[in-house]
Amino acid sequence: MIPANFIEALHQEILQTQYGRYPAELYDPIRYIMNLGGKRLRPLMTLMAAYLYTDDWKKALKPAVAVEVFHNFTLMHDDIMDQAPLRRGQPTVHEKWNHNIAILSGDVMLVNAYELLLDVETPHLKRVLARFNRTAAEVCEGQQWDMNFETRWDVTETEYLEMIKLKTSVLLGFALELGGIIGGADEANAARLREGGIDIGIGFQLKDDLLDVYGDPAKFGKQVGGDIIANKKTFLLIEALQQATGSLKDELTGWLSRTEFDKQEKVQAVTAIYDQLGIREITESRINQYFAEGFANFDQIEAEPARKDMLLTFTRQLVERES
Amino acid sequence: MIPANFIEALHQEILQTQYGRYPAELYDPIRYIMNLGGKRLRPLMTLMAAYLYTDDWKKALKPAVAVEVFHNFTLMHDDIMDQAPLRRGQPTVHEKWNHNIAILSGDVMLVNAYELLLDVETPHLKRVLARFNRTAAEVCEGQQWDMNFETRWDVTETEYLEMIKLKTSVLLGFALELGGIIGGADEANAARLREGGIDIGIGFQLKDDLLDVYGDPAKFGKQVGGDIIANKKTFLLIEALQQATGSLKDELTGWLSRTEFDKQEKVQAVTAIYDQLGIREITESRINQYFAEGFANFDQIEAEPARKDMLLTFTRQLVERES
Repeated sequence: MIPANFIEALHQEILQTQYGRYPAELYDPIRYIMNLGGKRLRPLMTLMAAYLYTDDWKKALKPAVAVEVFHNFTLMHDDIMDQAPLRRGQPTVHEKWNHNIAILSGDVMLVNAYELLLDVETPHLKRVLARFNRTAAEVCEGQQWDMNFETRWDVTETEYLEMIKLKTSVLLGFALELGGIIGGADEANAARLREGGIDIGIGFQLKDDLLDVYGDPAKFGKQVGGDIIANKKTFLLIEALQQATGSLKDELTGWLSRTEFDKQEKVQAVTAIYDQLGIREITESRINQYFAEGFANFDQIEAEPARKDMLLTFTRQLVERES
Repeated sequence: MIPANFIEALHQEILQTQYGRYPAELYDPIRYIMNLGGKRLRPLMTLMAAYLYTDDWKKALKPAVAVEVFHNFTLMHDDIMDQAPLRRGQPTVHEKWNHNIAILSGDVMLVNAYELLLDVETPHLKRVLARFNRTAAEVCEGQQWDMNFETRWDVTETEYLEMIKLKTSVLLGFALELGGIIGGADEANAARLREGGIDIGIGFQLKDDLLDVYGDPAKFGKQVGGDIIANKKTFLLIEALQQATGSLKDELTGWLSRTEFDKQEKVQAVTAIYDQLGIREITESRINQYFAEGFANFDQIEAEPARKDMLLTFTRQLVERES
């Protein structure tokens, strides 16, 4: 369990953060997207990583918010690119305002993230910023690969894993490394936090892909089979496209090319193909492999056992979630 | 005159800058827009400001390129928002590639600008980044005001001057301040560089507005009257809207509301209205006031006279340009 005071302090810090005032069209969307909620996993990871090495974990609060602001900046711009109407059940910024405002507010959010990072103590600042710059560029690279993959049917497993690593996992790695550096971790331990975070992050994304098909409808927040209906190129689909041969392959590509279909029928049919190919087991095995590598990295972290336990327990809860 | 070695070193540094490689769709547009040319005024200002206080002006090269990269990032995103087809006579990034690529490449360019700024020596880094963050946010604010003004006919002179200050002038001020800080200027001299740059920058923008109407067609690069044809809310139009009364006001608003017209006839008619209202003289007087304030700030800069002369001579040339 994560202590309530971490969550409360983070919540307060996000509420107190000043993004700017005028023109309102520029700054209102920032407050809007930041207040849509979310689990705040990344900044909590930053606080826990800092706490590994210091009682003064509060000095990681502003940098932790920087990570959350950066994450929400990527959501704001990704939503434009994906033409997404909703984010966490509410209208996206480009829908509620317009495209230009979503571009420009996002730009200022990225600047805001850098401003919050300036709170890092001077001896660590250059190192933190260099790592953040690399991470931010990688997240953009991941988004570009993801967009490129939309029009390709020959995406390999290796390419897909590299894409999700860049698009979603390096930021979790950075969130942990950032906390470590602020707390006083040496290079080796900061690297273990980062690498562990990246592995766990890849495992999370693969589990997202898996739950979309094999999740318990009673527990899974979204419609089970949504990715299948949308032909979304998930790990499961990429794996199935690579494994299937003969009539099974024809059946799968048939479902992918059909523009009119009964949704439930398509979900059942594609799931049956996955079942025949053993895609669930292949995916679960990959997920377990990444989680195991992540925990192996965390195990090597040198820190007080009681403090490490909090990070490990929290991560284990995330790993075991079913929604 | 600016020494050829400043220009040559800057040119080489821009050519050598690594923006990233894969995916190509993400990084090719950065190289494309950076190679469209331009006068490179802002980074040259950075180098000259550094040279005021150090012979080792080359240590300002990467930060100077950061300013140019940031400037081109704003152009890439502004061109999307303005739906501009051309930039320096070539297709804009969103036209040559697409909107999503222009958003995402721009995002990475902003990250690249921060990465180049990390070259600033550690003792100055935090101060430089804090100033850059403020400047970057202000540039976005200026762009938002500019977009807001498009649908308003009651924009005041004060609002317009504040908008161009934010959108275009604070970056020139930052370019100069940055060079000063890197060279070793104290707070007072860095502030003079910044304030002088802002005043000169506002003067430049007003002169742009003026030349569009009163420029010599033989010297002016663009079509004289382009702003009038497009109903662009320039200093001249805002001033005319505020000064005109009675039948002159009706005539002006008539031209603004007409959707079909002979371009040459509109340019001549609106120019004649400006002439009757003395808009040229009002604008020239404002330009001279800003230039005078800029030079007054520069005059107070404490630096070796020979070094200051280079900055003053270069600025004077810019101020006297007629295109």
